[in-house]
Amino acid sequence: MDIKAEIEKRTAEIEKVINAYLPVEENYQSRIMEAMNYSVQAGGKRLRPMLMQETYRLFGGRGQVVEPFMAAIEMIHTYSLVHDDLPAMDNDEYRRGKKTTHAMFGEAMGILAGDALLNYAYETALRAFNMSVEHIRIAKALQVLSHKAGIYGMVGGQTVDILAEQDGDLTKEKLDFIYRLKTGALIEASMVIGAILAGATKNEQKLIEQAASLVGIAFQIQDDILDVTSTMEVLGKPIGSDEKNHKVTYVTFEGLEGSKEAVERLSKEAVDCMETLVVKNEFLTGLLQYLIYRDK
Amino acid sequence: MDIKAEIEKRTAEIEKVINAYLPVEENYQSRIMEAMNYSVQAGGKRLRPMLMQETYRLFGGRGQVVEPFMAAIEMIHTYSLVHDDLPAMDNDEYRRGKKTTHAMFGEAMGILAGDALLNYAYETALRAFNMSVEHIRIAKALQVLSHKAGIYGMVGGQTVDILAEQDGDLTKEKLDFIYRLKTGALIEASMVIGAILAGATKNEQKLIEQAASLVGIAFQIQDDILDVTSTMEVLGKPIGSDEKNHKVTYVTFEGLEGSKEAVERLSKEAVDCMETLVVKNEFLTGLLQYLIYRDK
Repeated sequence: MDIKAEIEKRTAEIEKVINAYLPVEENYQSRIMEAMNYSVQAGGKRLRPMLMQETYRLFGGRGQVVEPFMAAIEMIHTYSLVHDDLPAMDNDEYRRGKKTTHAMFGEAMGILAGDALLNYAYETALRAFNMSVEHIRIAKALQVLSHKAGIYGMVGGQTVDILAEQDGDLTKEKLDFIYRLKTGALIEASMVIGAILAGATKNEQKLIEQAASLVGIAFQIQDDILDVTSTMEVLGKPIGSDEKNHKVTYVTFEGLEGSKEAVERLSKEAVDCMETLVVKNEFLTGLLQYLIYRDK
Repeated sequence: MDIKAEIEKRTAEIEKVINAYLPVEENYQSRIMEAMNYSVQAGGKRLRPMLMQETYRLFGGRGQVVEPFMAAIEMIHTYSLVHDDLPAMDNDEYRRGKKTTHAMFGEAMGILAGDALLNYAYETALRAFNMSVEHIRIAKALQVLSHKAGIYGMVGGQTVDILAEQDGDLTKEKLDFIYRLKTGALIEASMVIGAILAGATKNEQKLIEQAASLVGIAFQIQDDILDVTSTMEVLGKPIGSDEKNHKVTYVTFEGLEGSKEAVERLSKEAVDCMETLVVKNEFLTGLLQYLIYRDK
């Protein structure tokens, strides 16, 4: 299987699903809908909804109930980027070569568009109740979504990241915590929600959560490695930017070789986790490997 | 009934409920939990949870399932204030005599604490699924919450408010829209959710929504009137601040007398709505009148 070509194909399919759940730009408040849609449509591989859908399929899921959740997790990921880019946070004017939301619509709209996307993620996911009678699965999936996106997940990780940078007191232990929450939690949510909606057992959910967590951390360490080893052409953004910004990363603590070893180890553990399962999904396995060993 | 004394008593009871749902300040991310708790505990009459609880009781509700929703609506109201106070929005350093969240914790934490409260509102409301088997009612209540808090409700109203101020193109029609969404929508959500959770019929929910909408708009117009007629001692904040800030309000369009007449008319319509219902709740009726005719 040509995994890159396959991912591109799936990305295009998922974009259609996500677009169908975006708000129509209308009425007096149309500007906020424009800002939301601009933010979501700014690009990306849609990895979180892809992981969700493939895990759903892995456990035999065949309905459409997963779709509002796929759109919701991408909205949550997007809102976190919109707020991260704000002047009071990372103060980025560009992302993936396009103007960031606040640079395009003004700072107040940047804040409101992020708020709107977060809230609309729940409004969207809640539509699942109108699509399936499996209300307990949907309720559980929503609980996982809110838990992993909030202070015990992504927002918690962002907080510690920003405070450690402000206070200059980052330790290796704290960095592990940040990677697990800031990056890992939404990847866990994606895969666990796919599993829950397809009716996976508690034990299967546990294994999926564990594998997702390992993949999320490996994904983030690979990011740090690429910032040192890649070229600007391949990465599409300046390399060495972490060092230039005095950003403490996994490479700072463990060195390049140590970081590569960590990715290797985490990847092996994730594969072991997935292989414990009776069910198989070849594309999902390839996708997880791709995420860990990607070159950009 | 001494409505003011009764409201104070209920406020104290509701604070206990809300506090029970606030996060424990612990672990690396404890600062964000501090900022959330600081924001929620900064005061207020807890009118939205109060309206929710009383509407729940009006329709015979007796369980605890309404409590996570009471906490959730107050968290959503609070997050909207935290973000409203940010430098890029209203840029307020004080609210109710206390430092605003970003003034206390820094701008980045102000943004994140608002995000965290919005997300935690859903995390909290979703706990209702563990407290009651009325899953369809809970799902419906969550749908109302997300709809009224988002782009078709509160966030939509905030957007139009900010843009009209920036562009200086506020019309009376737009102002009505802003009041209905920015202030009205969360009051509608409070009362409709109370009704849904108690098992009110579709028709009863419709009447409650209508009454709540009228009360919300009257509440906001009364705010505009008080800014002109009250004294600083009573109001606890500078009067005439709207005029000083060149803020266009209902009084600008309709004059003081016209505004008072509008409050009178909306109040009568709300009372008519409530009287159509078979069920009665004396405190709720008094509370609605108090909200409309309050002197601060």
